[in-house]
Amino acid sequence: MLLYQDPRAPNPRRVRMFMAEKDLGGRGVSVELIEVSINEQANRAPAHLARHPLGLLPVLELPDGRVLRESMAICRYLEELYPEPPLFGTDAWDRAQVEMWNRHAELELLFPVAQVFRNTHAFWQGRIKQAPEFGEIMREVVAERMDWLDHELGHRRFVAGDAFTVADITAVCALDFGKISNLRIAEDRHRNLARWYGEVKARPSYKA
Amino acid sequence: MLLYQDPRAPNPRRVRMFMAEKDLGGRGVSVELIEVSINEQANRAPAHLARHPLGLLPVLELPDGRVLRESMAICRYLEELYPEPPLFGTDAWDRAQVEMWNRHAELELLFPVAQVFRNTHAFWQGRIKQAPEFGEIMREVVAERMDWLDHELGHRRFVAGDAFTVADITAVCALDFGKISNLRIAEDRHRNLARWYGEVKARPSYKA
Repeated sequence: MLLYQDPRAPNPRRVRMFMAEKDLGGRGVSVELIEVSINEQANRAPAHLARHPLGLLPVLELPDGRVLRESMAICRYLEELYPEPPLFGTDAWDRAQVEMWNRHAELELLFPVAQVFRNTHAFWQGRIKQAPEFGEIMREVVAERMDWLDHELGHRRFVAGDAFTVADITAVCALDFGKISNLRIAEDRHRNLARWYGEVKARPSYKA
Repeated sequence: MLLYQDPRAPNPRRVRMFMAEKDLGGRGVSVELIEVSINEQANRAPAHLARHPLGLLPVLELPDGRVLRESMAICRYLEELYPEPPLFGTDAWDRAQVEMWNRHAELELLFPVAQVFRNTHAFWQGRIKQAPEFGEIMREVVAERMDWLDHELGHRRFVAGDAFTVADITAVCALDFGKISNLRIAEDRHRNLARWYGEVKARPSYKA
């Protein structure tokens, strides 16, 4: 398989972490990482637009040439092919909890973090239309959501329960992506979040 | 089961349409719809915040009191309990396609449509911080995405393939939600989209 991706972008990282947790390499499953640099606008070049008309990353290409877009579609497909360890839950209710928390991590953390970056960071100046006012609104949302997640992580080990799941991957990728916009866990204020972050950071997949 | 929802909001409608496609009523599964009015800010009242700390809708409550948030977590849970007809795909690759297209419909249509509404509509003035400039950027995105979806629907009957799926539900709820912000399918320009819309509108679930 080929994974078209940018090593600096949060969504490709979600898929790389997912693949590392599944130990695809250890199973003898070959995944070649192919860099498509957003900085150099290679994602807007015809070669990539043929894979993804919107120029987004990552894209998975199967040996027969079929392509799959959207990080969570790729991860769910890999979960079906390689069910162990389960990263989307283990029974109907547990899977619903994982989906709920992965959605919360996406919509309440990753999304506003990304909008802060897109609308306020110099990287995007002249590349896209920015609305700094919206970025600042989203900055406040991120702070509130970090408080919420910190509170939630006082009740359990991982984002969706006692087991590490895709929801932890999404949350850690969102929080690390926030650093470029100076959105950071406050270690004194967010003790539960900091405890969880340290635990996730210690996993080999964190460096994927 | 209880579904806390607002009859005018797009996300609760996704779940109601999903339930109608599953014919839960015809199976003897009781789902009571309980209105939580966003207009009257009942979603910000303590009773609802106890169900959803962020005050969002819908929320599903099971007979034993457990609650489930996030539309897609609710729909996936119902898909597990009532697999027929399948609305998330039928095999690993098909399920990946449905997830991909449902994500596209959410992130590329429903999300920007919602941001146009939140950031430019009088309904939200004085209720939330608005960034009209961002709303106008998202208005352009919606127009581009409608062109894209129109092109895609020239190749197949439904959003994710030959079968009606959750991706069609998300797309039609997004497009109908756009009307309040004057975002509309252009019948002459979007012939494929208009053909698909007519087909989805004719299903009994459309009125759910």
